[in-house]
Amino acid sequence: MNFDALFQTQIDALKEEGNYRYFAELERKCGKFPKAANHVDGEKRDVTVWCSNDYLGMGQNPLTIAAMCEAVQRTGTGAGGTRNISGTNHDHLLLEAELADLHGKEAALLFTSGYVSNWAALSCLGSRLENCVILSDAGNHASMIEGIRHSKAKKVIWKHNDVADLEAKLQALPANVPKIVAFESVYSMDGDICPMREIVEVAEKYGAMTYLDEVHAVGLYGPRGGGVSEREGLADRITLIEGTLGKAYGVVGGYITGSAALCDFIRSFASGFIFTTALPPAVAAAARASIMHLKTSRDERIRQRAQVKKLRDGLDRAGIPHMMNESHIVPVMIKDPVKTRMLADYLMDEWGIYVQPINYPTVPKGTERLRFTPSPLHSDEDIAHLLNALTHLWKQCAVSHAVA
Amino acid sequence: MNFDALFQTQIDALKEEGNYRYFAELERKCGKFPKAANHVDGEKRDVTVWCSNDYLGMGQNPLTIAAMCEAVQRTGTGAGGTRNISGTNHDHLLLEAELADLHGKEAALLFTSGYVSNWAALSCLGSRLENCVILSDAGNHASMIEGIRHSKAKKVIWKHNDVADLEAKLQALPANVPKIVAFESVYSMDGDICPMREIVEVAEKYGAMTYLDEVHAVGLYGPRGGGVSEREGLADRITLIEGTLGKAYGVVGGYITGSAALCDFIRSFASGFIFTTALPPAVAAAARASIMHLKTSRDERIRQRAQVKKLRDGLDRAGIPHMMNESHIVPVMIKDPVKTRMLADYLMDEWGIYVQPINYPTVPKGTERLRFTPSPLHSDEDIAHLLNALTHLWKQCAVSHAVA
Ligand SMILES: Cc1ncc(COP(=O)(O)O)c(C=O)c1O
Ligand SMILES: Cc1ncc(COP(=O)(O)O)c(C=O)c1O
Repeated sequence: MNFDALFQTQIDALKEEGNYRYFAELERKCGKFPKAANHVDGEKRDVTVWCSNDYLGMGQNPLTIAAMCEAVQRTGTGAGGTRNISGTNHDHLLLEAELADLHGKEAALLFTSGYVSNWAALSCLGSRLENCVILSDAGNHASMIEGIRHSKAKKVIWKHNDVADLEAKLQALPANVPKIVAFESVYSMDGDICPMREIVEVAEKYGAMTYLDEVHAVGLYGPRGGGVSEREGLADRITLIEGTLGKAYGVVGGYITGSAALCDFIRSFASGFIFTTALPPAVAAAARASIMHLKTSRDERIRQRAQVKKLRDGLDRAGIPHMMNESHIVPVMIKDPVKTRMLADYLMDEWGIYVQPINYPTVPKGTERLRFTPSPLHSDEDIAHLLNALTHLWKQCAVSHAVA
Repeated sequence: MNFDALFQTQIDALKEEGNYRYFAELERKCGKFPKAANHVDGEKRDVTVWCSNDYLGMGQNPLTIAAMCEAVQRTGTGAGGTRNISGTNHDHLLLEAELADLHGKEAALLFTSGYVSNWAALSCLGSRLENCVILSDAGNHASMIEGIRHSKAKKVIWKHNDVADLEAKLQALPANVPKIVAFESVYSMDGDICPMREIVEVAEKYGAMTYLDEVHAVGLYGPRGGGVSEREGLADRITLIEGTLGKAYGVVGGYITGSAALCDFIRSFASGFIFTTALPPAVAAAARASIMHLKTSRDERIRQRAQVKKLRDGLDRAGIPHMMNESHIVPVMIKDPVKTRMLADYLMDEWGIYVQPINYPTVPKGTERLRFTPSPLHSDEDIAHLLNALTHLWKQCAVSHAVA
């Protein structure tokens, strides 16, 4: 059987519909963020990155860098085993304590990524709580969807951010089955924020456990960076808060926080936690330094918000439509994969602006977009340059039709 | 609903049967491997680690440490995005080229862990190749099992390392369905090695693709560390070779290698690849340095083999039964979770020897064991000390009954 031909057929179909992905090869340059080098055809060119999820530039903060190097020198480059078999290091436990404190929870548990934390925790909960029903927001991330699917638990999807629909669906379920309401705080592609208080209240009313993904909010919202649940004073009413160390914290890894029994349960039973090499202690140390810094320093968050506002105001002045939301994410809808790529290529080639086209399966087909994430390290000149480029682009007739 | 009570009930059941896991808290000390500090009740004590999967001590090799620190200083602590959205760094591509070369393949694809590489690749292949049947060795790792399960493809389990059984099962399938034979080279808990040539021949005979996990073999076998498939000269006949960067290479991460079409296919469709922050470029740089070193240096492998032999010979002299195999893994079967823990605790408390009890679900119930992994950095004195401790232990009447 010619397997390569089977693979190639499916790849060709992607290309046909404009959804084939070309990765931009970057060279991050420490201390220069959001500037980077882009390798193309054996040449390097300078670009400004406008779509990074290193939202606050903490990945190049001298504190996180120093913490990582110190820990590499002290402990080496890896953990040397799974958490159970020689892989639990002092630095992991320090980080878990830090995370529990961040969310005001009894305990925390570290995973190799936010994806794995969602997938492993939800598949463990859904499969081990007898007759469990998972009520999942329609906009939930792939990692949650795959975890729920893997659990084989009954899944009920409620309309995105629609509490009335959630309540109707909770009401329709028998009182005595365990229910998990799974949702996110900041939805990464539209940048909208959930009605958290209402969701929590409805979940409490029906005795459901709440599972909250704060991946795009930790470090960014709340006085200590504890996410939207901290900002709203709701963290203690949420059963499980999940987050990442790879976005605002600038490193890599994921985690859950919750009661000691909950974390011990996932620790003891979740395949994706048990059967994998632990994160390097140096990664844990760097993440911890980043979290500790953002617990007390608000400068990064304040400055980020200011730059987001400047970009939004500029887009408004230029008459360029962008999705309104109260987060740090600025989506400009194009609604066609081929046009989105064309615009992104033009911005990169002509203006040195790197914004990756966002296409299926990251967003539904027909909602392709450019997604800008201004950071505290984007200067006013960077913003002016971007606005200038977009204004030029929007003026061009063909393109203005494309986005009409 | 009292969720904590539900969790606690299942945790208590684990404790009851002796399968509850207590993680040993270690402090790796750079340059001291296999020595480490063990934190217990607020005190620290020195221990020798005898169960690490940092098989060659590369996690503390000056080369990997220097590469990681250099890259942290150069690029920062994180990748800043998924591979598609600003997360592809030059260091990732250099590592992928290195991995493709290691296994003599056209291409390679990096994942956040070996677990994720198996899970994501198998679930993608199984779900997207129409009518696909996956023939899985009965001893396969959890990450492969979960990937196959998640794919919802038809799964056929063949007897562990039994080529006749594999052939019977291949023969029973229709000729025109895509078939994947999934297996490992070195099985980590028994340390046995698969009959690779026979498996490949049978798979070829029935037109099946071969999926080989070399997680416990890369860096360790073959003249350049390309695994058992390199040693046997079979790499070019295997469709997909999967490995980890977290064991012999001493860092963290996982990968697949294969044809360009295969890797592009997984890159384009596998959820666990697409929807997650890329590994830090510094992790990629450290792993690459480790791989490059072990491609040319054989000292570590030769010395490891010598130390494994010394331990085995010593166990034989002392009359302590251990599982025979041709790998670097030395399992001593105890066959009871409570006794295994008792022995491990005693070795830790009285002798400063850290060997984690291996219990369910890592091994089947009733096959609990101590699993020793001698490295090139374990000295002859370390081995003598371990043999001395085990000899004492085995002489003690109660214990000798326990292992009878
Ligand atoms: C909502 C959400 N949850 C989880 C993840 C996965 O986190 P990580 O990148 O740490 O794997 C992502 C994105 O990557 C995400 O957008
Ligand atoms: C056979 C096998 N495959 C895959 C893995 C997962 O690799 P990683 O630790 O890099 O996640 C492991 C162990 O961890 C393993 O033993």
